[in-house]
Amino acid sequence: MTSIRVTVWNEFRHEKQHERVIAVYPDGIHTVIGDGLKAHGVESVRYATLDEPEHGLTAEVLAETDVLLWWGHMAHGDVQDEIVERVAARVLDGMGLIVLHSGHYSKIFKRLMGTSCDLKWREMGERERVWCVNPAHPIAEGLPDYFEIPHHEMYGEPFGIPEPDTLVFVNWFQGGEVFRGGCCFLRGRGKIFYFSPGHETHPIYFQPEIRQVIANAVHWAAPTNGPRIFVENRKEPIEPIS
Amino acid sequence: MTSIRVTVWNEFRHEKQHERVIAVYPDGIHTVIGDGLKAHGVESVRYATLDEPEHGLTAEVLAETDVLLWWGHMAHGDVQDEIVERVAARVLDGMGLIVLHSGHYSKIFKRLMGTSCDLKWREMGERERVWCVNPAHPIAEGLPDYFEIPHHEMYGEPFGIPEPDTLVFVNWFQGGEVFRGGCCFLRGRGKIFYFSPGHETHPIYFQPEIRQVIANAVHWAAPTNGPRIFVENRKEPIEPIS
Amino acid sequence: MTSIRVTVWNEFRHEKQHERVIAVYPDGIHTVIGDGLKAHGVESVRYATLDEPEHGLTAEVLAETDVLLWWGHMAHGDVQDEIVERVAARVLDGMGLIVLHSGHYSKIFKRLMGTSCDLKWREMGERERVWCVNPAHPIAEGLPDYFEIPHHEMYGEPFGIPEPDTLVFVNWFQGGEVFRGGCCFLRGRGKIFYFSPGHETHPIYFQPEIRQVIANAVHWAAPTNGPRIFVENRKEPIEPIS
Amino acid sequence: MTSIRVTVWNEFRHEKQHERVIAVYPDGIHTVIGDGLKAHGVESVRYATLDEPEHGLTAEVLAETDVLLWWGHMAHGDVQDEIVERVAARVLDGMGLIVLHSGHYSKIFKRLMGTSCDLKWREMGERERVWCVNPAHPIAEGLPDYFEIPHHEMYGEPFGIPEPDTLVFVNWFQGGEVFRGGCCFLRGRGKIFYFSPGHETHPIYFQPEIRQVIANAVHWAAPTNGPRIFVENRKEPIEPIS
Repeated sequence: MTSIRVTVWNEFRHEKQHERVIAVYPDGIHTVIGDGLKAHGVESVRYATLDEPEHGLTAEVLAETDVLLWWGHMAHGDVQDEIVERVAARVLDGMGLIVLHSGHYSKIFKRLMGTSCDLKWREMGERERVWCVNPAHPIAEGLPDYFEIPHHEMYGEPFGIPEPDTLVFVNWFQGGEVFRGGCCFLRGRGKIFYFSPGHETHPIYFQPEIRQVIANAVHWAAPTNGPRIFVENRKEPIEPIS
Repeated sequence: MTSIRVTVWNEFRHEKQHERVIAVYPDGIHTVIGDGLKAHGVESVRYATLDEPEHGLTAEVLAETDVLLWWGHMAHGDVQDEIVERVAARVLDGMGLIVLHSGHYSKIFKRLMGTSCDLKWREMGERERVWCVNPAHPIAEGLPDYFEIPHHEMYGEPFGIPEPDTLVFVNWFQGGEVFRGGCCFLRGRGKIFYFSPGHETHPIYFQPEIRQVIANAVHWAAPTNGPRIFVENRKEPIEPIS
Repeated sequence: MTSIRVTVWNEFRHEKQHERVIAVYPDGIHTVIGDGLKAHGVESVRYATLDEPEHGLTAEVLAETDVLLWWGHMAHGDVQDEIVERVAARVLDGMGLIVLHSGHYSKIFKRLMGTSCDLKWREMGERERVWCVNPAHPIAEGLPDYFEIPHHEMYGEPFGIPEPDTLVFVNWFQGGEVFRGGCCFLRGRGKIFYFSPGHETHPIYFQPEIRQVIANAVHWAAPTNGPRIFVENRKEPIEPIS
Repeated sequence: MTSIRVTVWNEFRHEKQHERVIAVYPDGIHTVIGDGLKAHGVESVRYATLDEPEHGLTAEVLAETDVLLWWGHMAHGDVQDEIVERVAARVLDGMGLIVLHSGHYSKIFKRLMGTSCDLKWREMGERERVWCVNPAHPIAEGLPDYFEIPHHEMYGEPFGIPEPDTLVFVNWFQGGEVFRGGCCFLRGRGKIFYFSPGHETHPIYFQPEIRQVIANAVHWAAPTNGPRIFVENRKEPIEPIS
């Protein structure tokens, strides 16, 4: 068991409008992600969604969140800039952030990356394989060399991100593309993990390997209590110039 | 000689208002930086400043610029957001960007880094040493293990940037601090170099080693004609799921 | 409390020969490092030294070691190549390795880095400051922006290592140098941390901040149970060419 | 035209023994690689092979080589350790090194990486696609988002290398694997590029995109005249402790 406090944020629009998504995630993608975390011993999981006041991400909620997960897709533009800045500040101050799938194009991810976050994509439900390229990394804990997702949307390179501080997974697609699908970034006092699987029409978040990766990522991204940035004056005597 | 087209952008406010700065840079910091580049064989140098229309950075100017240098300090807030986005888009599309000294806190650098870009600072005119930690890097070309700046403002860690894609210089300060003073970042199709020396009251940009570093950085940051991002459809036959 | 199994390896020659070292570490540097770990809740600490059979690093000992610490200086050449290869293989298979101070020039560190591991040095007992440049990293946990070592040997750049996968500490020296003093490397399934403080004539390993860093590093370097490398055959049907 | 002095080293055994290889490279793989470089304006190309005295890599040859290319496969064990150390020293002193295909398992590459350099492999002549993941890098100059190799040996992850300082290409294989096929490493004063295409039974080194990558890599890896490592004494007055 762990005392890490997780908030799973979901746009939660597809699940109210699209039959194919409702069939897979009737109570929302966030609840299935949360169930996966609970099954891995993460006890403190709360949810927040776009249509709540302040998108459910008040200063209080963020202050009590160690790791925030982010799933969004069709309504990135509806997220208020002020909330994006609030989340960004909290990440730089130490809160972990796990951005899932189409969240690559969310305001918060683009804000923290500083790049286009563009990618190629294709929806044909093709086969995907997630290969581990960094077996020493804690996010790879307990996972095999590769695992399969039977049917998924293709995401392809070039992916418009900064080179990850550590690359953990590279994904293969049946149709001929590759994708850096598991990427770690350290930013300020915070840790960010981007993980590409998770299209809303496929039951990705029920899959055991996916749940393992996300649970590992939550543990990796939980904040440390490291150094605080403070300004002091000189440490050695200096003779100022006139 | 090289055909790299450089634009040196300068805020150009200190040099109109502050006696100590006028004494060092009567015609503006940008002209001295430009003179240094010309002395290193960079023939095509133009200038742009904050108080020109569109800050001198029209779409035409940027389209004809291979590498943009950026010096700003007291008026970061006066740079229009629209121009910042225009420059950011051009960098991600391949234009090199060299950010100097207090430009660490410019809108364009913070926009592209996605982090606080905070640092410690102290103005006492103390001694600084710039140490090379990556002798294989082209920006270190022709430079010794270290060189000195006799009097400079201190910039200290923690510096709120992403971990550089390559760290080239680490600076030592007489008063007891260190600073990652020469940092390379690849972003999209563009290359970014941050170089910390250059306080406006010291004749830093006349110093031969500084001029060497900046000329090296211009050559490193010049765009290649690498791959363009385009979206195609599938490369292998896929049987779609129903 | 943690169940991480640590082995502290020490050359253990200075402490038998040099009065100044005996005065600081009468029972060996390794025991003081071990005491520091125990004070941080690491219960399982054993020791191994150069003059034991197989340098105390039998296959059995290594198989039961999660993290190995390495201190050596005057007798690097006496370490048998066969044992070096045994340790290297174990690191690549997942055992953490923490290399301390003059261990930068040990056979095992040079073997795993592939580079010269050269550095500048000077023994005058000058002041050193250890600055954190990556506050998000778990090895920085609980530490301030910087801490001081009152008297220490100088280690200076250029340091002949691969660029670290993550740089955590940069050290300042009174005499004018800087040094990348806290460096993380992922190699195979193993994690390596180099930490520069620890000259044998100064009571470095009694210092609380040093003990904190080493304890943090032990936790960071402990192996995960991530993917195993195995060879399989094809995953998709391929029509072989004739 | 460029004045970079290139030496192409080839094991040159397959081409004397195996019919299928002789059919593709009757004069040796090295001559075809050299022809590709000459077609890209690299005028100074010489060759060296395993069965020459000192494998053709005398101190004189290495001193006059700016960039060394390395192709080996069936006789890695026949390369003398002394020559390996000579090449390694020259790389750390600034000579560029480009390791091709099965050279991943050469003594020189393993020596400089410090890791296993293991990978998965399968010979079925399947389709491969080389994707660029870092369009800003000079080795990607002039290349499209991806290019195809119609028939090639599969190389798959996990690839037992240090995380590259810059990852340029990731390769897709028809049979279901991915591979980090274009990897940059800075080591000492030298630059190393590993490029995976080049199995001896396929006419890979005649392919225009492959020739472009190798020519780009030669330009990238050519040495700079950066800082030399030298030891000095103190730069600031220090009061030694007694």
